[in-house]
Amino acid sequence: MQYAKLGIEALEALRAALDPDGLSVRHEDRVHYGHDETEDLNHPPDVVVRPRTTAQVAAVVRICAAHNIPVTPIGGRTGLSGGALSVYGGVGLALDRMNAIVDIDERNLQVTVEPGVITQVLQEAVAAKGLYYPPDPSSRGSCTIGGNLAENAGGPRAVKYGVTRDFVLDLEVVLPNGEVIRTGARTLKNSTGYDLTRLMVGSEGTLGIITQAVLRLVPHPRETRLMLVPFSEATKACEAVSAIFRAGITPSALEFMERDAIAWTMRFTEGLPAQLSTEPAAYLLVEVDGNEGEELMRSCEAILTVAEAHGAGEVLFAESSAEKDALWKMRRSVPVSVKAHSTYKEEDTVVPRFELPKLLQGVKEIGARYGFTSVCYGHAGDGNLHVNIIKGDLTDHFWEHELHHAIREIFALTVSLGGTISGEHGIGLVQRPYMDIAFNTAQLDLMRAIKQAFDPLGIMNPGKVLPDQS
Amino acid sequence: MQYAKLGIEALEALRAALDPDGLSVRHEDRVHYGHDETEDLNHPPDVVVRPRTTAQVAAVVRICAAHNIPVTPIGGRTGLSGGALSVYGGVGLALDRMNAIVDIDERNLQVTVEPGVITQVLQEAVAAKGLYYPPDPSSRGSCTIGGNLAENAGGPRAVKYGVTRDFVLDLEVVLPNGEVIRTGARTLKNSTGYDLTRLMVGSEGTLGIITQAVLRLVPHPRETRLMLVPFSEATKACEAVSAIFRAGITPSALEFMERDAIAWTMRFTEGLPAQLSTEPAAYLLVEVDGNEGEELMRSCEAILTVAEAHGAGEVLFAESSAEKDALWKMRRSVPVSVKAHSTYKEEDTVVPRFELPKLLQGVKEIGARYGFTSVCYGHAGDGNLHVNIIKGDLTDHFWEHELHHAIREIFALTVSLGGTISGEHGIGLVQRPYMDIAFNTAQLDLMRAIKQAFDPLGIMNPGKVLPDQS
Repeated sequence: MQYAKLGIEALEALRAALDPDGLSVRHEDRVHYGHDETEDLNHPPDVVVRPRTTAQVAAVVRICAAHNIPVTPIGGRTGLSGGALSVYGGVGLALDRMNAIVDIDERNLQVTVEPGVITQVLQEAVAAKGLYYPPDPSSRGSCTIGGNLAENAGGPRAVKYGVTRDFVLDLEVVLPNGEVIRTGARTLKNSTGYDLTRLMVGSEGTLGIITQAVLRLVPHPRETRLMLVPFSEATKACEAVSAIFRAGITPSALEFMERDAIAWTMRFTEGLPAQLSTEPAAYLLVEVDGNEGEELMRSCEAILTVAEAHGAGEVLFAESSAEKDALWKMRRSVPVSVKAHSTYKEEDTVVPRFELPKLLQGVKEIGARYGFTSVCYGHAGDGNLHVNIIKGDLTDHFWEHELHHAIREIFALTVSLGGTISGEHGIGLVQRPYMDIAFNTAQLDLMRAIKQAFDPLGIMNPGKVLPDQS
Repeated sequence: MQYAKLGIEALEALRAALDPDGLSVRHEDRVHYGHDETEDLNHPPDVVVRPRTTAQVAAVVRICAAHNIPVTPIGGRTGLSGGALSVYGGVGLALDRMNAIVDIDERNLQVTVEPGVITQVLQEAVAAKGLYYPPDPSSRGSCTIGGNLAENAGGPRAVKYGVTRDFVLDLEVVLPNGEVIRTGARTLKNSTGYDLTRLMVGSEGTLGIITQAVLRLVPHPRETRLMLVPFSEATKACEAVSAIFRAGITPSALEFMERDAIAWTMRFTEGLPAQLSTEPAAYLLVEVDGNEGEELMRSCEAILTVAEAHGAGEVLFAESSAEKDALWKMRRSVPVSVKAHSTYKEEDTVVPRFELPKLLQGVKEIGARYGFTSVCYGHAGDGNLHVNIIKGDLTDHFWEHELHHAIREIFALTVSLGGTISGEHGIGLVQRPYMDIAFNTAQLDLMRAIKQAFDPLGIMNPGKVLPDQS
């Protein structure tokens, strides 16, 4: 795509469309909004706009369409696939000022929010009314609902409750031509026309900009039980995962962590149980939730029976809510502690649950052949394994020019096991070169035709998701 | 759209592409495959084809594309919106011979099926392995998974488990150009490209033909409790519905039936509890499920407390599995008993749960003004109310030429309450004239652009879902 450079006419039109403090071309602002959590990439937009209303978003998009300038929606900038980076410059449209919780509808168990609401802020606001919004990425303290919708984010509770997609009833969207539409209705069921709602979810800002969302809530479970189960072999831990479901139990979280993930994280976490050791090769963090404590204890016992049959060691029960918080903080700190340890690349592999051991073994074998180490952790109950490839003392040349061959092998293995190349992080910028592993030409051409139908000018978050046509 | 008439060349090409007994132009076959359960409509195709393989489906579609002949996919013909009717003649593609359960994957809690599998057959096959496929339309004994996917069918268990859409992991689809693609992966989470899977679900055969589906299963709950709760006022019953969820309970079914629905149905049902009376204005049929009987009893008690606060009468507990079956048979017999009672039109209204009483009252007021009676029942827990307008002794002229004004009023009310015009039956043929009530031009144009991207020739199930452009 050829785009126009941002000129004075377009700039002044944007300025006039926004609040007085709604636009910036300052270098530090452009750099600030030019990165997310993906490696150390930075692609600053030519101008940062921070609208406060849907009307302002629509005006910005109309100006970009009129001047053939790319526009990149920007959320909490916690993304791990580079979806919010302005790779073609142009307008960086930050939604951080549209962060209102518009309405908590307790009678219908629904909440209406603007895209800039921090996920954890939403969760705490509805919890105060006895309601529960389960999707909770590790970055929930800084990621936004808009970004969660764009990437179809998951998190630990997806294993029982589903991902972001499963909680969306209706969206307000600014289309690439500046028109504003709603995609659905405020109903739990909807068989009225094509499912525009779920087409928008996970489209990573390439089909339009979500300016409001109506989300489904559920009653907040009254009780949880949390335990950390050690295994001397990582593959045994993975094998236990599918066995737990086959025993008829659906945990509210079932997380896997390799030894190093635990070890590197402990220093970031206080209040962990004293018995926590880094000797076991891997841990499963298992949570069950519900309204009745005794039933949860029986579920825990059933889970432990399965775990012991797979060689589990001494289980660590969280005895207090403080210990629960500490264990969750440890789990949520894994990404940042890996980042602090070394330059790394994270692959968001996902396979059918039972195939996890094969995936883990295959990743290690590929690493051995290419000479890299990896730390694996993730949402094992969903078959979603985050493979963190550690640069350590690998050469820059290998990192830049050879590693991608290994990544292709990892993704090819993932797909051969019935899986795909992203479970919850999205494709964004950095996984685009691997889309041909997940999809053939017919599939990619169909997605391109959909993109063309929404965005004939190609101005909406260009350079993301769909690979360039070869 | 202008289509070619089926000629000898195309007919012989179709014959050659199918098994010897895979094609029929006999009048009785064309009539048989020319109707579903929608009113008394019959739109026979010019030829009925019954492929046995995806390759045969693809060959048929390629021939239709080459000759500009419309092709209409046909499932169990239990649809209530006319989606399977060959309104432009051409090829009626019946999938009833593609009815294999390809694989029940107990290790990953997944099942792979062909589209012609009867929903109840699938449910019983996986139940034999302790697994559960919850979506169960009233017609589950004769409807097929392919039709359920096309219409995004729901049923009583959707209130706890979700609709058909929520159980689909991956689809094999024959596109309108005859290409065969997969839409997803065999994974519980997927953020890889646009969500083609959920775009296909609910598209009513207008974007392609589903030839295989990978569905998610859950562990089968070990226990259920079922009760029938009478109310002297129908609106009070509706008010109790949202109060039950606000009390923190999520039933596995929460069904509403007006007096007449019960009365007309009783003669179709044996083994009902002796105390069942048709005096109450309405009943709620409430089911809870789980693994622990005592917890379910406590849930029932909590539900009854709420119900009594809304004026419920003496509850009828199903004391045996025979009584449970009888109560469910009664509920599932409502559609057929209404049909046996009178010519009728059924509207599949859906609103946010708390708005149900307003919808019910509004329907009755509109009926009073236009002079028709209605029987309302449905999945109250989802806010999904089936409004059955009874012809009784209304004139044919009113039925044909005036009733649609009343239906527009009912749908306008539905939309004004935050709802939409179909919760689970789809738009198909008969609800198309009302799409402008649910969507504005921008929304409809976007759906038309998607249709164009998939089916530029417009041969795939023409005359459905999207209204003609005015």
